Amino acid sequence: TQRLGGNTGPTVWTEFGGLAQKYDPVNLGQGFPDWLPPKFAVDCLVEAVQDSAKSPHQYTRPAGHPNLVQQLARRYSIHMKRDIEPMSEVAVTVGASQALYISLQTLVEPGDEVVLFEPFFDLYVNQVKLAGGTPVFVPLRFVPYDDSDENIITGGEWRLEKEDLVKVVSPRTKAIILNSPHNPTGKIFSKSEMETIAESLELAGPQCVVLSDEVYKYIVHAPPKDSTLDESPLCQGHTHFASLPGMWDRTITISSAGKTFSATGWQVGWCIGPQRLIGPIHTLLPYIQFCASTVIQEALARTLSQADQPYEGHTSYYGYLKSKYTRKRDLLVEALTEVGFAVPDYDKTPGGGFFIFARVSKAIEKVIPSKYMMQKNDAAPGGIARQDWALCQWMAEEIGLLCIPASPFFSLEQVEEGAADRFIRVAFCKNDETIEAAAAALRKIK
Amino acid sequence: TQRLGGNTGPTVWTEFGGLAQKYDPVNLGQGFPDWLPPKFAVDCLVEAVQDSAKSPHQYTRPAGHPNLVQQLARRYSIHMKRDIEPMSEVAVTVGASQALYISLQTLVEPGDEVVLFEPFFDLYVNQVKLAGGTPVFVPLRFVPYDDSDENIITGGEWRLEKEDLVKVVSPRTKAIILNSPHNPTGKIFSKSEMETIAESLELAGPQCVVLSDEVYKYIVHAPPKDSTLDESPLCQGHTHFASLPGMWDRTITISSAGKTFSATGWQVGWCIGPQRLIGPIHTLLPYIQFCASTVIQEALARTLSQADQPYEGHTSYYGYLKSKYTRKRDLLVEALTEVGFAVPDYDKTPGGGFFIFARVSKAIEKVIPSKYMMQKNDAAPGGIARQDWALCQWMAEEIGLLCIPASPFFSLEQVEEGAADRFIRVAFCKNDETIEAAAAALRKIK
Ligand SMILES: CSCCC(=O)C(=O)O
Ligand SMILES: CSCCC(=O)C(=O)O
Repeated sequence: TQRLGGNTGPTVWTEFGGLAQKYDPVNLGQGFPDWLPPKFAVDCLVEAVQDSAKSPHQYTRPAGHPNLVQQLARRYSIHMKRDIEPMSEVAVTVGASQALYISLQTLVEPGDEVVLFEPFFDLYVNQVKLAGGTPVFVPLRFVPYDDSDENIITGGEWRLEKEDLVKVVSPRTKAIILNSPHNPTGKIFSKSEMETIAESLELAGPQCVVLSDEVYKYIVHAPPKDSTLDESPLCQGHTHFASLPGMWDRTITISSAGKTFSATGWQVGWCIGPQRLIGPIHTLLPYIQFCASTVIQEALARTLSQADQPYEGHTSYYGYLKSKYTRKRDLLVEALTEVGFAVPDYDKTPGGGFFIFARVSKAIEKVIPSKYMMQKNDAAPGGIARQDWALCQWMAEEIGLLCIPASPFFSLEQVEEGAADRFIRVAFCKNDETIEAAAAALRKIK
Repeated sequence: TQRLGGNTGPTVWTEFGGLAQKYDPVNLGQGFPDWLPPKFAVDCLVEAVQDSAKSPHQYTRPAGHPNLVQQLARRYSIHMKRDIEPMSEVAVTVGASQALYISLQTLVEPGDEVVLFEPFFDLYVNQVKLAGGTPVFVPLRFVPYDDSDENIITGGEWRLEKEDLVKVVSPRTKAIILNSPHNPTGKIFSKSEMETIAESLELAGPQCVVLSDEVYKYIVHAPPKDSTLDESPLCQGHTHFASLPGMWDRTITISSAGKTFSATGWQVGWCIGPQRLIGPIHTLLPYIQFCASTVIQEALARTLSQADQPYEGHTSYYGYLKSKYTRKRDLLVEALTEVGFAVPDYDKTPGGGFFIFARVSKAIEKVIPSKYMMQKNDAAPGGIARQDWALCQWMAEEIGLLCIPASPFFSLEQVEEGAADRFIRVAFCKNDETIEAAAAALRKIK
């Protein structure tokens, strides 16, 4: 921990988890569904637990349970149109978070730089530091649909500009973390943005690797128009960065079961890539834990083999999942716009994942009671005045709705410049009744 | 991984796992039971999976699922005779291996020394190195029961000598890893040896912490005579190092569910200790994985609450477990002695865990075919000639019995001096039929 420096407080997940417990607000905060995993997945877990023939209650291979790595290799071989070797090109981890952690631990040496697109998923920064690396930030530029009237706040798009990336990539760059669909913005990187990233690797040199965090790959509710390199019907409009020409050899593709199967507590994730990158992960894994839970890995292997079947009137579970999330997104869009938050227009802007990064109108800002601005901001990390943090504290405590402030997803420098002030992250991986209760709470703001 | 140096090969578990697959020998190698977990534990897991009221399929608290940390605090409060606070003095990890890893990551800074008693559980060494530390070895001295005739090999005891420990402990010592019952020898540290360790902390200074790995605590099949500080009937003769006067504040007690509930694949472990030591672990955990599998944690909480009940004619499951292992130990003792291996005399020597560290007679050594000595040793880690490794390869390939060589449990220096030559580790956490099949295979040696 010494590498984190002395001032590492609890994460926003612990802080706002505490607020959720204390005030019992409607919870559109952390990204976990408040429904059960699909029945076939729960059944697969029960069957795995009760399979006394080949007991999955004992250690499995540290690199990953054979049945699971075979299923993963099979699926990714289809999606990426290449033969993926299950024993040497797949590594199973305890969730995608650990896949990032261990990838960085194997790649980064002290002094190396790792590029993060900002805003970024908050845990990345300390994961880079724990590996001895220096996070280097490349802004995604927010471009409002209409900024002609400075008093009117509209939705907009987050864009990666080539100049911004080219400016920071160098021979010191050991890795670039790409997260598409993106947490917290919901952005899907366009094909041309992905090509920009691929080109930047030439500037960096051969040591530089892309870590492609694709945990929301099956939740592409507004597919990008310029995609998709990957036309497999099961891929649902998601482009694997590793499928770009020449990129397989330079990419670790990271994902997990949690978001896809509404089972964030199962905690099984993976890394897929060439043996030169996966081999060191295999070497390191047994020292971090002997293996990921065998019985959950076995259950997931069975679940994956069933998910391609027709499901609830859709050609597969994945089709069902996408349509369910599209409907929920629309419910939340309505609730947020009604009270003056600006949201993306998904007819214009691709979207994926299950968060809306909503823009706060000036009218809403004005109603935050001053005591939140005065007293509570000091508690926010870094001790910097944070408009977004104050807003979310007030909402959790007095409006009865928990959302996640934007500032944990930005570097301190950007927070100081106010980049996070006008955004909050709102989750729609919640039951319709939860979203409706959120809508009712929101109306108290008006 | 760069910290491991360039020459980190696969672990002995991967190497001999491979031999097991290739030659399909009777497997008394890795320490996992070849039976199912007790029915009540499997039922608890099924019930947890199917509990739709409080779904345990989503994220839980990174520091540990509330139901589980409460159960753990309750039990350890009884055993350690102090009030353990579930939220701040317990951290849940992915197995005991990860508990060691994360403890070392929070404690050790580059240049720090960590004391290991040799032989040691093999993964510790690289875990220390990964934290930037230097492993420092303190020998356990093997004292044969009778060494009057150099041609006759007898069993014996492994002893910790105060001078050996005092010689290496210094203000550079950041941690001492204690593992009792001990893997691979089955040794239980006596009360006076534990006191020696406690005294050595004075020499080291206040920065030095004991990591007490107690995963075999419920498998004390030959309790030590001079124990036990801890007289709780559920403790079955095991002494918690943290219960020694003054030691709570300087100890992280580590354990897991795997060995106790014959569920090594569940992969839930924990650290118990004062807030000053557990707090940094809580800080680090979410970066290594967001949480350990929620549903397994919930199942284990339920399992722990049932294990105290009368079970199969015993006052608790723990009593049953101990008597089952005592019987299996006796079966294996008989099989090994019959063909000339020397084993501990458990009437004289305390014993715990589920391994016998058997001493190889000169007669057995002589029957190893020379081709194993010549050709195969080069494949052994470090490229050093290893009598034990050759013996185990030959046994796996031609005798049809897989055991684990001793050398992975020793430092290279000690291996070069021949310390491991005369030992192999044999597991008795196996069905009676497996042990009988092992006995039949062993008879081929004579
Ligand atoms: C553990 S937080 C993991 C990601 C997520 O679900 C979130 O961003 O809310
Ligand atoms: C993963 S090996 C863990 C410990 C054990 O079971 C063994 O030593 O065989």
